[in-house]
Amino acid sequence: MEEKLARLKTILAEAHDLLHVAELLEWDQQTYMPVGGAEDRGYHIGTVKRLAHERLSSDGLGRLVEELKPYAAQLDPDSNEARLIRVTEREYTKRTRVPPEMVAELAQLQALGHRAWTEARAEDNFPKFRPLLEKIVDQRRRYAEYFAPYDHVYDPLLFEYEPGMKTADVKQIFTALRPKQVELIQAIMSRPQVDDSVLHQPYEEQKQWDFGLRVVQKFGYDMRRGRQDKAPHPFTSSYGLGDVRITTRIMPNYLASALFSTMHESGHAMYEQGIDPAMARTTLGETKSLTLHESQSRLWENLVGRSRPFWQHFYPQLQATFPGQLGGADLETFYRAINKVEPSLIRTESDEATYNLHIMLRLELEIALMEGNLAVKDLPEAWNTRMQEYLGVIPPNDALGVLQDVHWSHGNIGYFSTYALGNLVAGQLWERLRTDLPDLDEQIRRGEFSALLGWLREKIHRHGAKFDAQELVQRVTGSKIDPAPYLRYLTQKYRGIYGF
Amino acid sequence: MEEKLARLKTILAEAHDLLHVAELLEWDQQTYMPVGGAEDRGYHIGTVKRLAHERLSSDGLGRLVEELKPYAAQLDPDSNEARLIRVTEREYTKRTRVPPEMVAELAQLQALGHRAWTEARAEDNFPKFRPLLEKIVDQRRRYAEYFAPYDHVYDPLLFEYEPGMKTADVKQIFTALRPKQVELIQAIMSRPQVDDSVLHQPYEEQKQWDFGLRVVQKFGYDMRRGRQDKAPHPFTSSYGLGDVRITTRIMPNYLASALFSTMHESGHAMYEQGIDPAMARTTLGETKSLTLHESQSRLWENLVGRSRPFWQHFYPQLQATFPGQLGGADLETFYRAINKVEPSLIRTESDEATYNLHIMLRLELEIALMEGNLAVKDLPEAWNTRMQEYLGVIPPNDALGVLQDVHWSHGNIGYFSTYALGNLVAGQLWERLRTDLPDLDEQIRRGEFSALLGWLREKIHRHGAKFDAQELVQRVTGSKIDPAPYLRYLTQKYRGIYGF
Repeated sequence: MEEKLARLKTILAEAHDLLHVAELLEWDQQTYMPVGGAEDRGYHIGTVKRLAHERLSSDGLGRLVEELKPYAAQLDPDSNEARLIRVTEREYTKRTRVPPEMVAELAQLQALGHRAWTEARAEDNFPKFRPLLEKIVDQRRRYAEYFAPYDHVYDPLLFEYEPGMKTADVKQIFTALRPKQVELIQAIMSRPQVDDSVLHQPYEEQKQWDFGLRVVQKFGYDMRRGRQDKAPHPFTSSYGLGDVRITTRIMPNYLASALFSTMHESGHAMYEQGIDPAMARTTLGETKSLTLHESQSRLWENLVGRSRPFWQHFYPQLQATFPGQLGGADLETFYRAINKVEPSLIRTESDEATYNLHIMLRLELEIALMEGNLAVKDLPEAWNTRMQEYLGVIPPNDALGVLQDVHWSHGNIGYFSTYALGNLVAGQLWERLRTDLPDLDEQIRRGEFSALLGWLREKIHRHGAKFDAQELVQRVTGSKIDPAPYLRYLTQKYRGIYGF
Repeated sequence: MEEKLARLKTILAEAHDLLHVAELLEWDQQTYMPVGGAEDRGYHIGTVKRLAHERLSSDGLGRLVEELKPYAAQLDPDSNEARLIRVTEREYTKRTRVPPEMVAELAQLQALGHRAWTEARAEDNFPKFRPLLEKIVDQRRRYAEYFAPYDHVYDPLLFEYEPGMKTADVKQIFTALRPKQVELIQAIMSRPQVDDSVLHQPYEEQKQWDFGLRVVQKFGYDMRRGRQDKAPHPFTSSYGLGDVRITTRIMPNYLASALFSTMHESGHAMYEQGIDPAMARTTLGETKSLTLHESQSRLWENLVGRSRPFWQHFYPQLQATFPGQLGGADLETFYRAINKVEPSLIRTESDEATYNLHIMLRLELEIALMEGNLAVKDLPEAWNTRMQEYLGVIPPNDALGVLQDVHWSHGNIGYFSTYALGNLVAGQLWERLRTDLPDLDEQIRRGEFSALLGWLREKIHRHGAKFDAQELVQRVTGSKIDPAPYLRYLTQKYRGIYGF
């Protein structure tokens, strides 16, 4: 059996090499690739992903997994080996439902879609993106059919990003969350608005860049195993534990964008950097739950990065970096500014209180697209209608509306809800952290993050893909994904700021 | 037969996708990869190259080529199809001599070797690189044995970089060249030295960068299908006709380094950008002859970029860019400075007259290493001895001596002689160009390069790998590789500058 396990690991190592290579090709596509490279890049990514897929769906792998199951049953069910076999079986089952041509087709659509989206967004020209998006939606629906029968046509897509989660579960959590989140926003909106004009001034790009990197290195993001580059939409990508990169975009007249996006991506990156090296080049060596991933990024961005203790430490440094802009603004003014709640157009720039509503909008549109209840051509209107309904604002153009996110151009339908679920898990982890590290605020106030990062490494990061989100959250906090702690956190925080 | 040809092209397309992917992985390794990524990058490149190699050496490909040979015999022997089949057969034969493990082993050694070399060079610590270089030399000797019987153990390595060329041919050309080149240098050295102090001043890095890019875009390097980045050793890499990138390094106190290296790499890049798109993703769609490649880079760098007509156009712009440094230096002073001949330490910084001697030194050391007549541990001493013998200078340390070039760390033994051969071919092409474009100097003086680039596209670039160097040079110039035109060019040029 050891020999079979070794053979399994050899196949997985080669497949994960290819997946990591594809991820680097995608990173390059969004950072440095000249426009002329788009067509060939589609071929390259398509070929590499197809070869990975062939390995991860090969009969040989299937037989090995079947043969290893009795062996796994004898092992400690929480051991790396038992989990490796179980998770590999699940991924294998998922992959063998779909013919390899589908994988190559999607990769090709992603390359072309990304190009069309980039141009469409720059030109505020949704019709330029529409034909590709129609192909992508059609491709995703054909993909889902391979998983019939399903409870819901959206389930197979959700499964891509959040294994073990059902459309019905997400709807239930969001149904519980939504009225309370709306209620909170109404309470906030009934109070005098915060002034965040201090953030909207010219801030030198290089200084923004340097300050953000200084913060995340203090967090513990290891830049000998990472780097930051510019991209139109910030993201993190990993090619193994030794090379986990982040990207950001800098707004020259708005301080909060790059700063918090860098913290956000560093949360993702530290997660990947913290995986147990013993899992490298296997199915367990890369995170599978985007909810857990987002819980890490949002925890560092918001629960740490928008907290008062954090800025008690960093604000004097930020003032020294931008004396002209911040010299006259005290800590409290700055703290309130970065926590201003205001229903707005752009998800990635939106505040903690309204963020989840942006997600609910996208989730509902995606479900309707997949159900066939919404046509791509009607998407801009549906988007704008819901923006008004949920947030009371209508995008003046599609670039600031339906074209704002990169996800659909990459075929990433089913992804968005994990952002909101990640917020909820961050809230749950934060309550547990406060119990386990009673002086957490004091540590943060001193600019010390090693105990916090150590706790996250121990409880979350090192486990890689061993546990689904629900299972790991249960193990760490004692309950499944639950919106209550996050709502408590939001309520307490905004009560302090808005005084409702 | 058409169906078989289509199947051949499908296999080749996938294999060339993988080769292009490996090239991007290597580009990233030398530009942006954090140090922590080195080990995994070795796995990634190894896996991708092995998969490419498996395809290019598969029984299926071999059978297709055999079956297509009678078909090829009926075609116009110069047609793309006939040449594709012939060149693919040659590459197939070469590849099937070597087991796939050798390919993966080399890729792994390249990744580790690059790291060791980078550190060794930075620390001037040859012993740090030595164990890896010993492994690389050993690997190359084991590689060569797969091609036994050979005329010379170095032949199989030369064949990697210059198909159709033999060690004996190269020795013969160099034997004819060397005394004349030495004689020329002696004539130059007998005259008063040129003052190039104008080049050795502080030059703002960003302005150097921008000026170099302005020049090569004027040449015709298409930056919608390319880009420039920084790397420790300048190189060009291509992932298809739509994405051909160059790199450079900038010396803040020496103007000539980045400027001429950018021109040099643009020559390589324009060659790749000019290949007939019909050959894309096939064996013909990437250049195979490094001699032809180097003829292009050296032509743009030296025969154009260090010529008087070129600077009659560009020098006023350069003066306007660096008024403090160049305002007081006239065109003739500058022209003489960039053409100063001085036996020196660094190949990439050396002048046109002495360059080929740097190559001869490396060629002789490589041949001795491969023959087993020189041990890696004795390499620094052998290097320094020959430097004194050929150029009259001894490197003060190994960083400026045996550690200066990246090539050996990549296992690229057999590569160097193509640099000198490229010079000779550039000289041959230049004589032919002057006949075909009688007003070439006048065009260059006006900053017009489209007729020149068009000629090179037509005569050289578009053919991709259809013809070996000797064959194409013969077709274009009427004779095989011949040092006489290059020597005529050098003699005339330096007689004008040094007045011997």
